[in-house]
Amino acid sequence: MATTTTMSEVGEFPLISSIVKDLPMGRAVTLGPGDDGAVFQVDGSVVVSTDVLVEEVHFRRRWSTPTDVGRKAVAVNVSDIEAMGAVPVALVVGFSAPGDLPASWAREFMAGMAGEAEKAGVSLVGGDTTAGPVITIAVSVIGQTAGLAPVRRDGAVPGDEVAVIGQLGLAAAGLVLLGRGFRSPRAAVSAQRCPEVPYGQGRVAAQAGAHAMIDISDGLLADLGHIAEQSGFAIDVTTSALDIAEPVRTVGMATGMDPLTWVLAGGEDHALAATFSPGGVPDGWRVIGRVLPPDEVADPTVLVDGQPWERERGWTHFHS
Amino acid sequence: MATTTTMSEVGEFPLISSIVKDLPMGRAVTLGPGDDGAVFQVDGSVVVSTDVLVEEVHFRRRWSTPTDVGRKAVAVNVSDIEAMGAVPVALVVGFSAPGDLPASWAREFMAGMAGEAEKAGVSLVGGDTTAGPVITIAVSVIGQTAGLAPVRRDGAVPGDEVAVIGQLGLAAAGLVLLGRGFRSPRAAVSAQRCPEVPYGQGRVAAQAGAHAMIDISDGLLADLGHIAEQSGFAIDVTTSALDIAEPVRTVGMATGMDPLTWVLAGGEDHALAATFSPGGVPDGWRVIGRVLPPDEVADPTVLVDGQPWERERGWTHFHS
Repeated sequence: MATTTTMSEVGEFPLISSIVKDLPMGRAVTLGPGDDGAVFQVDGSVVVSTDVLVEEVHFRRRWSTPTDVGRKAVAVNVSDIEAMGAVPVALVVGFSAPGDLPASWAREFMAGMAGEAEKAGVSLVGGDTTAGPVITIAVSVIGQTAGLAPVRRDGAVPGDEVAVIGQLGLAAAGLVLLGRGFRSPRAAVSAQRCPEVPYGQGRVAAQAGAHAMIDISDGLLADLGHIAEQSGFAIDVTTSALDIAEPVRTVGMATGMDPLTWVLAGGEDHALAATFSPGGVPDGWRVIGRVLPPDEVADPTVLVDGQPWERERGWTHFHS
Repeated sequence: MATTTTMSEVGEFPLISSIVKDLPMGRAVTLGPGDDGAVFQVDGSVVVSTDVLVEEVHFRRRWSTPTDVGRKAVAVNVSDIEAMGAVPVALVVGFSAPGDLPASWAREFMAGMAGEAEKAGVSLVGGDTTAGPVITIAVSVIGQTAGLAPVRRDGAVPGDEVAVIGQLGLAAAGLVLLGRGFRSPRAAVSAQRCPEVPYGQGRVAAQAGAHAMIDISDGLLADLGHIAEQSGFAIDVTTSALDIAEPVRTVGMATGMDPLTWVLAGGEDHALAATFSPGGVPDGWRVIGRVLPPDEVADPTVLVDGQPWERERGWTHFHS
C-alpha cells in the first residue's frame, strides 16, 4: 500500500540534510550549509532584510503548490534587497511545519526556493527546520551594495518623477479569483501564488541615480506613502499614466469590481517604485506621478489625480 | 476598567515601529530599521545563521517570561556565530503571533531581545511582524570573520584535545524541574528559560587556533558526533573530566535521575565544544576528551570512556 511519508517520520535532521545537499552555491560562498553558519564574501556594505510567510495568512495550501510557496518566499524577500538598489547574494530560511506535513511538500517547497533563488541570482546557504502547528517560513536575504549607495525611502525631493516597474494589481485580482473558486485568467492567479519580481531593476534604478525606492508589497498608495512620509514631501499619482494590465481589466469586468482599486491598493505584486530627477527615469520604468513641492501640498501624503484617495490605500492580506 | 491591548488592536505596523524605535545601533550599522533593508559594514567575510523558536516546541509561555524568550532567541542564534569563531554584528527577527497576544508580551519580548543583543555585542537591525496561530520567532544573525578563518566542524585531527566552555546539562535539568512544577534550583530553571552563552569565547578559540568547533544545542554527544562525522575521526569523551555543576547534581538527587545523562545528552545550554592541538587549549576551557587516530577507532563516532554510549545521545526538545 502506498503511504505518504511525513515530516515526523523523516525527522528534522535528515530532512535538512536532504534539502541542502546538492544546492548550487554562488562563487561568493566559501562555506555552504551544514556547519553552524554559512560563510560568503560581500562587495561593499551588507544589506539585510527578513520576511515571514504564514500559512492561511500569506498563502493557502489549497490555492498554491509547494513550489509556488517556495518561489514566493524567495521573491518577496529578494525584492526588498532590490528596493535598496543592492545586489542579493545569499539567503537563509527558517521553516516550521506540522509533523503530519508530507515530507514531499517540504521537498517541493525547497525545490521552489532553489529555483527562484537561481533566477534571482542568490545562493540558499542555510536553514533551520522545526515542528510547529502551521507552515511558517522566515527568509532572510543578504545583499551587497557593491559600489553604490543604498537607495533609501527618505531621499525623494520635489520635482522628482515617480516611476514603477513590475506588475500592479495582478496579485490582488488573482486573490479575488481564487477566493471565488476561479483559476483563470492564469496570469492573475499565478501572480497571487508567486509574484514576478523585476529582478535586477532595483540595481538599474540605483545606477540611474534613483533618489528613493521601495518595493510595493502593501499597495502602491500605501508604499508610496512611506516614501512621502519619510522624505517629507507629498506625491501625486496620475491614474491616466497607470497601466492596467489586460488580465486585471478582465477580472474587473467579470466581477464588477473597479480594477483601479487593485492597481492602487493591491499588494503582493512586489513591483518597484522609485523617484528620479526629471529625465533620469531608466528604460522600462513607467512614470506615474511626481513629488510635489511643499508650497503646493504641505502634508507629506499621497494624492490621486491631485485629490485625496478615500478608498482603501493598502493591503493587509487575507484573513482566515 | 483595565483592559489588555492585543496585537490585533495595535496592528502590525505600529507595533513594528514602536519596537524598532530607539534601538541602539552599533557603529557598523549605517542604516537601521525602517527601510526595505538595513545596511551595515563587515570586516572580512560574512557568516550567517538562522534559528527558529516555536511556542510549545522550544518554549512555553507559562514557564518563561517574554523577556526570557527574547533573550533566548538572541542567545541561541549568536551562539552559532560564536561557534564559527566569528564576531556577531547584526540580527533580524521574524515574529509571528496570534492576534489576541497581549501587545505587552511582544514589547517585553523585544526588550529581552534588545538586552541580550547588547550583551552579545550585536545590533538588532530589522524585523517582520505578522499574524500566526502560535508565537514563532525566526532570528538570523550575521557576523564577520574579521581576519580569522572560520572554524568549521570538519577540521578535527587525531591527537586533538576536545574542550568545552559554558554550561552542560543545566538546561536539561531545568526542563525536568519545570515539567514537574518546580521552580528551583534557580540556576537550572533559568538556564532552560535562557542559556548563558559564553559570548566571546568562540573568538577566543579561533584566535587560539581551534581546528573544529560547534555549539552544543542538541547535546554534547550529538554535537561532538557532527564534528567526528564531518572530520572523519572518532572522539572519546572522558566522563571523569566532565564538570557536573552543583545544581545539576542537586536535581539528579532530587529526582533520582542520573545527572550524567543531562551533561552528555542534554541540549539547549549552548556551550561551545572545540578541538585544539595538544597544549593549545585556551584558559577557561575544560578538556573533556580527545580525537582518536583511525587505527585506534576507525568509525567516526563518539565514545564515552572508550565505550559506545547506549543511552540517548541528543535532544529533540519537549513535545506538547
